Amino acid sequence: MSHTPLLDRVAGPADLRQLSDSDLVRLARELRAEVIDIVSHTGGHLGSSLGVVELTVALHAVFNTPMDKLIWDVGHQCYPHKVLTGRRHRMRTLRQKDGLSGFTKRSESVFDPFGAAHSSTSISAALGFSVGRDMGQPTGDAVAVIGDGSISAGMAYEALNNAGHEGRRMFVILNDNEMSIAPPVGAMSTYLSNLYASEPIARMQSLADGFEATIPEPMRIGMRRARQLVSGLPGSGTLFEELGFEYVGPIDGHNLNQLLPVLRATRARATGPVLLHCVTVKGKGYAPAENSADKYHGVSKFDVPSGAMSKSKSNAPSYTQVFGETLTDEAARDPSIVAVTAAMPAGTGVKTMADRFPGRVFDVGIAEQHAVTFAAGMAASGLKPVCAIYSTFLQRGYDQIVHDVALQGLPVRFAIDRAGLVGADGATHAGAFDLSYLCNLPGFVVMAPSDEAELRHMMATALAHDEGPSAVRFPRGAGVGVTLPERGEVLPMGKGRIVRDGGDVAILSLGAHLSECEKAADILAQEGLKITLADARFAKPLDTDLIADLAANHCALITVEQGAQGGFGAQVLHHLANTGGLDGGLQIRTITLPDRFIEQATPDEMYEDAEMTADNIAAIIRGLQRKADNILPLHA
Amino acid sequence: MSHTPLLDRVAGPADLRQLSDSDLVRLARELRAEVIDIVSHTGGHLGSSLGVVELTVALHAVFNTPMDKLIWDVGHQCYPHKVLTGRRHRMRTLRQKDGLSGFTKRSESVFDPFGAAHSSTSISAALGFSVGRDMGQPTGDAVAVIGDGSISAGMAYEALNNAGHEGRRMFVILNDNEMSIAPPVGAMSTYLSNLYASEPIARMQSLADGFEATIPEPMRIGMRRARQLVSGLPGSGTLFEELGFEYVGPIDGHNLNQLLPVLRATRARATGPVLLHCVTVKGKGYAPAENSADKYHGVSKFDVPSGAMSKSKSNAPSYTQVFGETLTDEAARDPSIVAVTAAMPAGTGVKTMADRFPGRVFDVGIAEQHAVTFAAGMAASGLKPVCAIYSTFLQRGYDQIVHDVALQGLPVRFAIDRAGLVGADGATHAGAFDLSYLCNLPGFVVMAPSDEAELRHMMATALAHDEGPSAVRFPRGAGVGVTLPERGEVLPMGKGRIVRDGGDVAILSLGAHLSECEKAADILAQEGLKITLADARFAKPLDTDLIADLAANHCALITVEQGAQGGFGAQVLHHLANTGGLDGGLQIRTITLPDRFIEQATPDEMYEDAEMTADNIAAIIRGLQRKADNILPLHA
Repeated sequence: MSHTPLLDRVAGPADLRQLSDSDLVRLARELRAEVIDIVSHTGGHLGSSLGVVELTVALHAVFNTPMDKLIWDVGHQCYPHKVLTGRRHRMRTLRQKDGLSGFTKRSESVFDPFGAAHSSTSISAALGFSVGRDMGQPTGDAVAVIGDGSISAGMAYEALNNAGHEGRRMFVILNDNEMSIAPPVGAMSTYLSNLYASEPIARMQSLADGFEATIPEPMRIGMRRARQLVSGLPGSGTLFEELGFEYVGPIDGHNLNQLLPVLRATRARATGPVLLHCVTVKGKGYAPAENSADKYHGVSKFDVPSGAMSKSKSNAPSYTQVFGETLTDEAARDPSIVAVTAAMPAGTGVKTMADRFPGRVFDVGIAEQHAVTFAAGMAASGLKPVCAIYSTFLQRGYDQIVHDVALQGLPVRFAIDRAGLVGADGATHAGAFDLSYLCNLPGFVVMAPSDEAELRHMMATALAHDEGPSAVRFPRGAGVGVTLPERGEVLPMGKGRIVRDGGDVAILSLGAHLSECEKAADILAQEGLKITLADARFAKPLDTDLIADLAANHCALITVEQGAQGGFGAQVLHHLANTGGLDGGLQIRTITLPDRFIEQATPDEMYEDAEMTADNIAAIIRGLQRKADNILPLHA
Repeated sequence: MSHTPLLDRVAGPADLRQLSDSDLVRLARELRAEVIDIVSHTGGHLGSSLGVVELTVALHAVFNTPMDKLIWDVGHQCYPHKVLTGRRHRMRTLRQKDGLSGFTKRSESVFDPFGAAHSSTSISAALGFSVGRDMGQPTGDAVAVIGDGSISAGMAYEALNNAGHEGRRMFVILNDNEMSIAPPVGAMSTYLSNLYASEPIARMQSLADGFEATIPEPMRIGMRRARQLVSGLPGSGTLFEELGFEYVGPIDGHNLNQLLPVLRATRARATGPVLLHCVTVKGKGYAPAENSADKYHGVSKFDVPSGAMSKSKSNAPSYTQVFGETLTDEAARDPSIVAVTAAMPAGTGVKTMADRFPGRVFDVGIAEQHAVTFAAGMAASGLKPVCAIYSTFLQRGYDQIVHDVALQGLPVRFAIDRAGLVGADGATHAGAFDLSYLCNLPGFVVMAPSDEAELRHMMATALAHDEGPSAVRFPRGAGVGVTLPERGEVLPMGKGRIVRDGGDVAILSLGAHLSECEKAADILAQEGLKITLADARFAKPLDTDLIADLAANHCALITVEQGAQGGFGAQVLHHLANTGGLDGGLQIRTITLPDRFIEQATPDEMYEDAEMTADNIAAIIRGLQRKADNILPLHA
């Protein structure tokens, strides 16, 4: 434990506001040590939290939170904020079951006025609060803190454009560390760098005439010079000024002697929207983080002196890894294969391909809308694009999937990682909805592998399918450890497979829950009940022969999927209903994610919470048996 | 018919390239007259097509279409393009069943390399084609033509950002008419105006040093002056230059003596991405259009000399109109009600409220992502936001609906117009998927009115429901003509209503297809079959008592909805399956949109194509009866 005498006296932001500026500097030092200590025990988003320690102290010292609304974009940089806002004693529960969220969350604290986890929402939300304040709601100023990666996304641009037009008093803090999760891409990133590249930071443009008078003497000279340098000709300003914001900065986001006076002056004088450009260092103050390539963006538990992380052992390669290797292997054989990622080359596994074929992998930044249509354009030109986006983030490109891909029948291959429940990142990152938002689209092929070998086959199938769009959705984490084929085989379109022949009750499973179904079948076998277990492979098109066979020759049929209602099971039900398959009676149950959001825990715990374990599945089938003793064969 | 001797000789763009520049000027004149004549007979998007007559001629004359890929953003300005690309003889079938699409469409012509109808996709697609060309696909240059409204959307910004970073040769033509569908909003719009406001157009910045030499003498002086005015300080350029584009312009988009040389020079010299800023006038060359407030954006058939439009008579007010009036009325009673639209104040009906309460209606421009989260921020501040976006465009805000609204349980009210099939705008504008992409979200209330009085009740219900998000989805066009209540009543949550008591077969209808179901019930009544007809009102939460009652007391149950599979019917099926309601046998059928895209026609024709007419419904029920003569009561 660190020695934190000042921090120990801070129960909340109000206490902070009693401290002198020099005490705030000491407090920031203690806060940094505390955050490092916490994350060494819990794992989590260390780098981004260390980058905003001083900013967090300064914002709470200057603004009147929680009446003023402090909105952290993405929210993964919120650990210092949580420590200062009454949650210090619970920090060691971070990202665990029943513990604190790794993001900001409205239900957790009044100091989290607008939760997040996906990027680039904060400016929109802050504008909403600003309108609320102007219309008499009990809310003060709104402050959005957004990173340089997040502000490059289209959504942030839409919000800046609208906020600049509205002209309402609000504050956007650009936390510019030249580093989103991956190294920055895009022209905007280059532009931001140019704003401070030629001179050391601490230059700044004035908020308004006379602004310097409120700023300590040593800073004024630099500011005046900066105004000329940054603002250029009269009438020509920074990109932010062109969008209607007052631009202040760039300033050193780790120097409280700059941050505090600038924030105070800005708060005192702003009449419209202000953008304060702070330059920070991701991982600041912890050498192993600063020196690491990804700045310890997301870490497991680690040893503080050395930075060595504890590794979780797994027997099987992850789905991500198998996807990356399969893609690279296929790309080596077919030069028309290209890949697109939205700021997640490592997370999605396309980095493996980029390492070998850098010219054929496109990281478009946090820009899922563009990513999808860009891929559609490449498909229209004759290339074979693989668009690799997590299930939860692909929601950002839904209209583009409908309008540019499905309607035009273009063969874009979606590789959808993090499908189903994902663990510590919680409900915001769950890939719960992709089956329902894709299976409703005409002409889409939707697959889900039950193990990592199946993933390899399905990638081969998707790449061979050039007649229309396709998607392969697979879970986060390790595969089941099966032997991987040298190369994937092209699967018969819309055909499932029987994994185990039983005869009493049929389970039709889609995707990675197959192993849980196998456990359920084992449990029931011990009770004398013979389960037929089928792997649907395709959520669309359905294997209607297989479904008819399962329905006709079993007393009950259970569909299982790692997704919300309205997806695979719904497709099976629609098909059975409309072909008369339910007319004569069929004990059919659909096991899906329940109709509520599942809170963070390990994936296993989350599926337990969702009542989707092998025991749950067995219990459902046992319940059927009890209800229908006259139909089902009695077990021993 | 106009006299069009030159146009008569143009079978395709290749013929255009044989004409002299002065002949091209004459051709443009003929083309304009032809477009006015066509649209006077067909109705359609006149203003935007008239704005690009010269640009269309110039692009096809200079670029080597269809090898070069010309991509019209949105595509509603494509009428001159269609006339020049071999579709002139079919222009009078525009927007009709089996006729030409009102947008660009890949299946219609090789000159439409990437179809559209939603905005802001063209730059992404063009970048995709450019990558294809660079990787050896048989494609030439890619040219995106995008309006000032469309380029303000986040998606276009994402594409510019990525294209600027990629640095590949490609062309973006900014068609700047200061007018998307509604008057322009947003800071970007102001910025664009400033680029040419202070001086007359025809100034332009050079593409590269020495560029002027390729330009006719009279233009050079203006260009040199323009370069200084627009580019400002060295290193400081236009917003587009900051994003990595060469900026050329602004030039007069109606002057072929500017357009042709500039396009030729640009095509000859470009090595990276180029943005050509053309200033045009929507409705150009047709006085009634130029003088109209909306520049004849979308028109019905009209008389050419006077511009007088033929009006379609309807006995009932439109759903849009009833929504607008209801919203305004409720807003008058409750000052916390605010409304958000994404560039569609008139189309969505919120203009009615804006006329009375201008400070409480927010037009954020083409920015659906921001619109949704901005509304969520307002809800978090305590306001009651109504977010009015067409079903098809709300797909753009899906992640924000999931992440910012549903996950946080914020009471944003979505008013979803154009649900179901919409007519002449075709498959791209169908509101087919909202039920499936909303019913899967925990905590969402999803309603659909069966007539315009129900819409009024449902708006009251949504506004009274402050515990979480809600949506009311309703169709395009006229209501059924029922008497409107003075004020909407708050409906009991999740409760449907019996419309007609029958006893033989039950129809459970959601939304506006109820009238078609009534017709089906009438048809069957004449055959002696008594139909119970229920109006579900809520797709979520389901009226489980009503469903149980209908299932228990009828020989068959038919669900009906104007949406794709995976929505309302799927929710009913899931519920019945998992409560054992299908165990004993239930003749259940789900009538939804079929699993294919329905092409443009009148809405009635489209529902006929979808096999969802009263006759279709009656036939399905009759089919059941035949199959189950032993169960169903025999009719006379």
